[in-house]
Amino acid sequence: MPPEVKALGFDVFGTVVDWRTSITREGEAFGRAHGISGVDWVTFAEAWRGLYQPMMNKVRHGEIGWTKLDDLHRMALDQLLKDFSIKGVGEADIDHFNRAWHRLDPWPDAVAGLTRLKRTYVLTTLSNGNVALMVNMAKRGGLPWDVILGAEPTRHYKPQREAYTGTAEYLGIRPEELMLVAAHNGDLKAASGFGLRTAFVPRPKEHGPGQTKDLAPDGAWDVVAQDFVDLAEKLGC
Amino acid sequence: MPPEVKALGFDVFGTVVDWRTSITREGEAFGRAHGISGVDWVTFAEAWRGLYQPMMNKVRHGEIGWTKLDDLHRMALDQLLKDFSIKGVGEADIDHFNRAWHRLDPWPDAVAGLTRLKRTYVLTTLSNGNVALMVNMAKRGGLPWDVILGAEPTRHYKPQREAYTGTAEYLGIRPEELMLVAAHNGDLKAASGFGLRTAFVPRPKEHGPGQTKDLAPDGAWDVVAQDFVDLAEKLGC
Repeated sequence: MPPEVKALGFDVFGTVVDWRTSITREGEAFGRAHGISGVDWVTFAEAWRGLYQPMMNKVRHGEIGWTKLDDLHRMALDQLLKDFSIKGVGEADIDHFNRAWHRLDPWPDAVAGLTRLKRTYVLTTLSNGNVALMVNMAKRGGLPWDVILGAEPTRHYKPQREAYTGTAEYLGIRPEELMLVAAHNGDLKAASGFGLRTAFVPRPKEHGPGQTKDLAPDGAWDVVAQDFVDLAEKLGC
Repeated sequence: MPPEVKALGFDVFGTVVDWRTSITREGEAFGRAHGISGVDWVTFAEAWRGLYQPMMNKVRHGEIGWTKLDDLHRMALDQLLKDFSIKGVGEADIDHFNRAWHRLDPWPDAVAGLTRLKRTYVLTTLSNGNVALMVNMAKRGGLPWDVILGAEPTRHYKPQREAYTGTAEYLGIRPEELMLVAAHNGDLKAASGFGLRTAFVPRPKEHGPGQTKDLAPDGAWDVVAQDFVDLAEKLGC
């Protein structure tokens, strides 16, 4: 492993937490609470996540000013409620459902692995999720971050350079002293291009049983680990 | 206590950590390492801290652009090395000494109190210290923050409004859902004026045995506690 690494920056959605199962569970609860029938909540969850990149693109391309992910999630949700013909739900309940993204469950190895890694490294989020979302998720799931950084404090969404290098700047370290941990080759490719170190941890069920992408590393990442406990082993923690 | 409080924001220098004793210790070690004699390191520590507000004023008043506290500490240190006629120390050693502020010891009750408070509340720094300083201090001292906020992520030094209200915004809560915990009446007065809740925890030895200010509350703060364990008691944690 690169000896100069001082901090690990984690992609979160998909890498640390299982958004698909969790959002499906939240959707089912939302449907039961409001007597909504005929909605496949797995499809709904995938559609919600499907609007993630298009919504961030509005910010990346300057169509709209800086907008935190909670608000982009809400813009997407409002669109999906129309698309799925869901009506008559009050504002407070829609807001609660929107914050389902604050209540995603960690993958089973995540807390144990992070707890070991924290003994040696500064652990930061390096996610497009906003600070409140990350804090609430960590409180609920027991994720032992040292600090919450990434998109909101740098005002740029990955894969824009500032999200990565700005996170290193906040930590007072050079890009090569920060290692991105992610289940997504594209994220690692961007980080690597900006001078960060890289660790790939595949999450082969992120997109369900039929997942076809990000099953294996497609770049010369510094570390490849099976899960976060294996990552701790490979980093000597 | 106010029932709607969701997060506690902590002033750090003086409130959580004992800067005077720690900087004196670091100065003594610096002096021994470089054969410096004739310097009273308590006086040096107090002089360094004495330049804290003047240096931040340069940023507050727009004399210089946003400058993180590490860099303000360094500007002050460079001045003091001249004032105390300390010469011949290399850049790496001066930089290490400057980061003495990353190595301040918590008051004896701090970790125990924070650990209890964390079970109920989101705990954030609400300090003028920069993120790297806060993260390194927390790693070394075992301070269990959920998130590091305050001056640097909001780009404003307390007592400017944005440092307080911007911290609440990052947390996705209203100002009245955030309680400032501080040993300084002036900080609490500013926070209260911007809608935050307030808790006063006196630190009667922050400025040494002859301390004359901030020995008692001088406002109608929501909570007054003797230390952080007492604060946890008073907040029902």
